[in-house]
Amino acid sequence: MSNESTIIPPVQTILNELHARYAPLNQGSVATYIPELARAQPDQFGIAVVTLDGHIYSVGDCDVPFTIQSISKPFVYGLALEDHGFDHVLNHVGVEPTGDAFNAISLDPGTGRPANPMINAGAIATTSLIVDKGGMAAMQRIMDMFSRYAGRPLDIDDQVYRSERDTGHRNRAISHMLRNFMIVRDDPEKGLDRYFRQCSISVTCRDLAVMGATLANRGINPVTGERAIRADYVDSVLSIMGSCGMYNYAGEWIYRVGMPAKSGVAGGLLSCLAGQLGIGVYSPRLDERGNTVRGVHVCDDLSHLYRLHIHNAPNVSRASIRSRYNASEVHSKRHRTPRESEVLLREGHHVRIYELQGHLNFASVESFSRDMVGQAAEADLFAVDFKRALRMDLGGIALFEELLDTLLAAGRRVAIADAEHVAGLGDRVEAIAQKNEDVYIAENLDWAIEWCEDQLIAAVDPKAMPQTEVPLHDNEFFSALDASTVEKLIALAKPGNASTGDVLIKAGDLTTSLFFLTRGEVSVTIDLPYQEHVRIATHSAGMAFGHLAVLDTRPEAADYNADTDVEYYTLAVSDIEAVAELDPHLMASVYKSVGLNIAQQLAAATTEIQALST
Amino acid sequence: MSNESTIIPPVQTILNELHARYAPLNQGSVATYIPELARAQPDQFGIAVVTLDGHIYSVGDCDVPFTIQSISKPFVYGLALEDHGFDHVLNHVGVEPTGDAFNAISLDPGTGRPANPMINAGAIATTSLIVDKGGMAAMQRIMDMFSRYAGRPLDIDDQVYRSERDTGHRNRAISHMLRNFMIVRDDPEKGLDRYFRQCSISVTCRDLAVMGATLANRGINPVTGERAIRADYVDSVLSIMGSCGMYNYAGEWIYRVGMPAKSGVAGGLLSCLAGQLGIGVYSPRLDERGNTVRGVHVCDDLSHLYRLHIHNAPNVSRASIRSRYNASEVHSKRHRTPRESEVLLREGHHVRIYELQGHLNFASVESFSRDMVGQAAEADLFAVDFKRALRMDLGGIALFEELLDTLLAAGRRVAIADAEHVAGLGDRVEAIAQKNEDVYIAENLDWAIEWCEDQLIAAVDPKAMPQTEVPLHDNEFFSALDASTVEKLIALAKPGNASTGDVLIKAGDLTTSLFFLTRGEVSVTIDLPYQEHVRIATHSAGMAFGHLAVLDTRPEAADYNADTDVEYYTLAVSDIEAVAELDPHLMASVYKSVGLNIAQQLAAATTEIQALST
Repeated sequence: MSNESTIIPPVQTILNELHARYAPLNQGSVATYIPELARAQPDQFGIAVVTLDGHIYSVGDCDVPFTIQSISKPFVYGLALEDHGFDHVLNHVGVEPTGDAFNAISLDPGTGRPANPMINAGAIATTSLIVDKGGMAAMQRIMDMFSRYAGRPLDIDDQVYRSERDTGHRNRAISHMLRNFMIVRDDPEKGLDRYFRQCSISVTCRDLAVMGATLANRGINPVTGERAIRADYVDSVLSIMGSCGMYNYAGEWIYRVGMPAKSGVAGGLLSCLAGQLGIGVYSPRLDERGNTVRGVHVCDDLSHLYRLHIHNAPNVSRASIRSRYNASEVHSKRHRTPRESEVLLREGHHVRIYELQGHLNFASVESFSRDMVGQAAEADLFAVDFKRALRMDLGGIALFEELLDTLLAAGRRVAIADAEHVAGLGDRVEAIAQKNEDVYIAENLDWAIEWCEDQLIAAVDPKAMPQTEVPLHDNEFFSALDASTVEKLIALAKPGNASTGDVLIKAGDLTTSLFFLTRGEVSVTIDLPYQEHVRIATHSAGMAFGHLAVLDTRPEAADYNADTDVEYYTLAVSDIEAVAELDPHLMASVYKSVGLNIAQQLAAATTEIQALST
Repeated sequence: MSNESTIIPPVQTILNELHARYAPLNQGSVATYIPELARAQPDQFGIAVVTLDGHIYSVGDCDVPFTIQSISKPFVYGLALEDHGFDHVLNHVGVEPTGDAFNAISLDPGTGRPANPMINAGAIATTSLIVDKGGMAAMQRIMDMFSRYAGRPLDIDDQVYRSERDTGHRNRAISHMLRNFMIVRDDPEKGLDRYFRQCSISVTCRDLAVMGATLANRGINPVTGERAIRADYVDSVLSIMGSCGMYNYAGEWIYRVGMPAKSGVAGGLLSCLAGQLGIGVYSPRLDERGNTVRGVHVCDDLSHLYRLHIHNAPNVSRASIRSRYNASEVHSKRHRTPRESEVLLREGHHVRIYELQGHLNFASVESFSRDMVGQAAEADLFAVDFKRALRMDLGGIALFEELLDTLLAAGRRVAIADAEHVAGLGDRVEAIAQKNEDVYIAENLDWAIEWCEDQLIAAVDPKAMPQTEVPLHDNEFFSALDASTVEKLIALAKPGNASTGDVLIKAGDLTTSLFFLTRGEVSVTIDLPYQEHVRIATHSAGMAFGHLAVLDTRPEAADYNADTDVEYYTLAVSDIEAVAELDPHLMASVYKSVGLNIAQQLAAATTEIQALST
């Protein structure tokens, strides 16, 4: 079927609509304090939105370069925090909004400390703090940082820089005033020159959206995957943008629009919302506060259409548990003896399995922690699967460690699956496991469940544990058959053996025999794309496999691997059929036995589907 | 097993530790401007944390009453917004932080408008805005609102009220100044009296935590489930707390601690984080800014331990898709004819099924929207399941509607399952479905998938659609058997019939026969706790059921219901066995046929498990 045509995603449609809505708006005027800015084409207009998986939506003039101007301030502030830490920076620049205009001097009358890093005085003080490091000059480090945020090498617009430098008398005055108060400690011209350069970096509105998305993504550029700022300082940069980013419109902006933002006099506006997106707008006509007129409208509309407001935070707490079930409902892929199965069915509720998912922060870890502690009244063993956990912040990790401490102190045992793919978590739980044998680190949930099952069986009915060797007569396949049928079948069976690592049956082979394992273990695995060797089953001595071959011959879908040295017997289906020509009752018995075995597997699969989908 | 003992959840342990850490801290002093406050026991100290599912953690003096004081301000501001909307309120009280002390007058020199509602002047102006409504006086409405936030009826501490009223000269001056500027338009003493009363409401720190959690939960008290404020105004209340809640410490507070908060001179502190939690602390010793010393420490520590900062928002975008698969991997519970099954296997990739989950906001809907639009290159039909969607904000709903528009405009069809349990979504999609037959609203995912399968089969191979009547000879059970076996079995079959609504087999019955349906439809259902009638299967004319009875007699787990008037044949297993005594080949054929049928079901179940767990 499929009526082919390119479909425009809804967010692109909305951006197109917003662009069309505000393109005719020509209020405001281009900044003119230097001729280079006055030359901007007032009608240019671009909007870009970048998601946290790095998708870029754009409409209009998204590749037109303009100078970043004041939008540089929060980024350099972040670099200063990385260079010196909170306390030192706070001694030089405050964090209180002033409600003043962008070029206000706003120095503390006593200390000379600028009120915040978004006013020019605070920004010059901040830029002056950046140090030479690792063989790179401060200015080179600043350029390098901006390039990481934008995901491409950025350059300085030399003409704008020269013009700013030659006409920036007010900023020069501020700079010397900062030197007077010892907020700037070396040559004030050095920091000032850096400031003029940083304001003259040439960007596009697509760059601004990527930079915003990098902040929204806790410092990792979602397009390139490169880190631009330590996660620890992202909250600080966003806080400053949130409280002081839009000049004397800041209070109303965060109240109405609710996204941290920063505007520049060249007509750029960067806005972003942690956990959601980055927005860049370019339109050079400014309002009387120095903010791009269309940019303010676009952000305001996007915020109201989609409730993009810092305080409209998602509630992820109840979403952290993808599935919760116990070991009588879902089993590991290890086939169990009837006696083991009986233990799991009867006592499996002492094992609770949690599949976690999504973003794990304080609220979501609190939610499943409390659930687990409640379940611990009945449960002794827990398997916790992080396969679908996308991210865990340091708060979530801290609380999870306390949960482990709590459970271990109360004598519970915990298997943790797939923790190593969650940044920051793997090493922590590995360290805990090394000090505590009640914690088991498993590669995946299947192994974690198997460990819990083994612990449970060993505790409840140690004799149920499987044997290394089981004579052919005692194979589970024969248990439902009468003695004479068993004798006839055994007479047809042929012995075989294999060494650890051998492949007994290869995917694609036509299986034409039943296998009876008398010694060792055989694992059945398939290769899935992106996942090597998914385990389908492990059989141990006394078990049979290849039942389907009796009913039908079709190529095997899986590999059968000897996990240990193994001994087995095979029973060719053709041999059974030959004998059954004369003895049809035998054939009926075999079919019935095979049918019952498959029916049992179906019952288990049905229970598992129910547990997985409720 | 189970070593019984009460286990303390980790968050409780942390609160106990924080209480022990700061109880010895006796910096600061109790407010003394009225004797009633001076009488507070300076060493009292309580901490409470309330989660968004309404769990209350508490330690220390959590039941000690004290007056709410300035913590009342943001709540009354929310009520004023409900009464008058943003614009009217904004004309009377601004939203810009001042960096001034709590009792600063801070009126705009031109208009007399107070800078924000957290300073006394702004709060008195706000309280004066509250109207009588629905037969309730303004003050009664204020009390009623606070009681909904706290989840219990609150009272005024009469002694504190009288004392505040008799000594509040500065506030009286402010009130008259507001009257002078026409910010307050009627008798200034009326609003002022209300203000003194609202400040004298008696609360505990547990109440504060519940009130904070109510704001964090978008206005719904998580303990009582009652709404305390319209969701639309929650962001505004939190914004104001975030920018102006902690007096002249506000800028640094939101930078460092990062949670909207409000303190009161009686020693209370309320703090909360949208989507996560509410915190209440009570400790009467205040610092020089009027904030409770221990309260500030506790919030600061909790914020840093667990990264509780507004800008550390969870990224839920990639977590929105719980599972995604196509109709060749997972089928509805309707059993299909071989020809239908062949269509589903071959063409099922044209149907994409999305199970959504968690909190659906702009970012998460954007994420699966883009995924669906991408899949639409190949897919014509979509089933979207909201069963595990916990909440969807208006932004998420708006974007989902645009996605539907986009897909429908491109000729795609969409089945939506379980939308009615997501507040706000059900009515919207119902309205869309009524205008558009390409949208199908299904009670659950099973029915949504069935609808998609039906559409696909009808489009690709209309002749594959099942018949209403199929003669016994053509029953699918016989297709693998030779003609003479079929004749023998048919000779043993006995006809039966039932009317719509009849139960053919009841759960608990021992089934001893195979059923062959020749006319109509039979559904197999089970009753699960909390879910009525989960469908296991639907069989139509030409299909057989009861295969397991041939292998084994055990009680049926499900009900078999006639969905229409039905005609069928039954074949008693005992009759087959009797004939097979003389004709063992017959028995073998039947067992093999049953075995193959079950093997086919197992293969489907295995595919389904793989699709559900990857």
